[in-house]
Amino acid sequence: MRFAAPGSTEEVEEGLALTPKFDRDGLVTCVVTDAGAGGVLMVAHMNAEALARTIESGEAWYYSRSRGKLWRKGESSGHSQRVVEMRIDCDQDAVWIRVEQVGAGACHTGRRSCFYRAVPIGGRVADLALEPREGEKLFDPKAVYGEPKK
Amino acid sequence: MRFAAPGSTEEVEEGLALTPKFDRDGLVTCVVTDAGAGGVLMVAHMNAEALARTIESGEAWYYSRSRGKLWRKGESSGHSQRVVEMRIDCDQDAVWIRVEQVGAGACHTGRRSCFYRAVPIGGRVADLALEPREGEKLFDPKAVYGEPKK
Repeated sequence: MRFAAPGSTEEVEEGLALTPKFDRDGLVTCVVTDAGAGGVLMVAHMNAEALARTIESGEAWYYSRSRGKLWRKGESSGHSQRVVEMRIDCDQDAVWIRVEQVGAGACHTGRRSCFYRAVPIGGRVADLALEPREGEKLFDPKAVYGEPKK
Repeated sequence: MRFAAPGSTEEVEEGLALTPKFDRDGLVTCVVTDAGAGGVLMVAHMNAEALARTIESGEAWYYSRSRGKLWRKGESSGHSQRVVEMRIDCDQDAVWIRVEQVGAGACHTGRRSCFYRAVPIGGRVADLALEPREGEKLFDPKAVYGEPKK
């Protein structure tokens, strides 16, 4: 293991040692925001190896739960992410990285951000319809990834 | 259940129906950013009930994994969150809300944001020390919550 185990709540919350609290699948949540525009690009997961590689290389590495493998963002698409800053949260089970997104977009659907639909607030859940937001497709996922992701 | 089950990948990613993909604990990840300053305040989880209440009321509701209960943000501290916008991601397992944070802070440690420590990039994991960032305590958690959270 590349990280020390978490200590007391006081140590985890107030200390300066990085002791990530990996979940039962060995993952922490990673929020990725655009260092320029500021919005959320994507939410992904990191295992210990992905977290260590990201810290040491400055390139974003993740762990794909659906594919069961470590991956460097952009290894298929060319759309890599350079980490400008990384932060850890109070209980050390979530990481926030601000990145420079290389290439057109972070989302495998071809969009800049994965968050391209708004959920209207204030109405009944039963009646709602999502509203497209900044959903322009900047690249063709079939051309970049080959066949569609399942 | 208050939400329809997810359909095909095409429907989930390109459709306008909100069909959240809850994990095996019945949760989606929720990223909370400050509608004003723009940074990430916290990462939390919502079950179907928390998500529905947030959408219908415009106040942030979460599900606490550690306490095993639904809670309205601010019910103990008074530091509630008014939702300015909600977005859902491509595969509908993560929600992003932009909020107006009422009261001093989002973090139970007394700080504005849970992300008050930076992880230096580019060095060896074995050698790193976290760096405090905007970590001023804006309220006294003991005065707000009573005894410290475990």
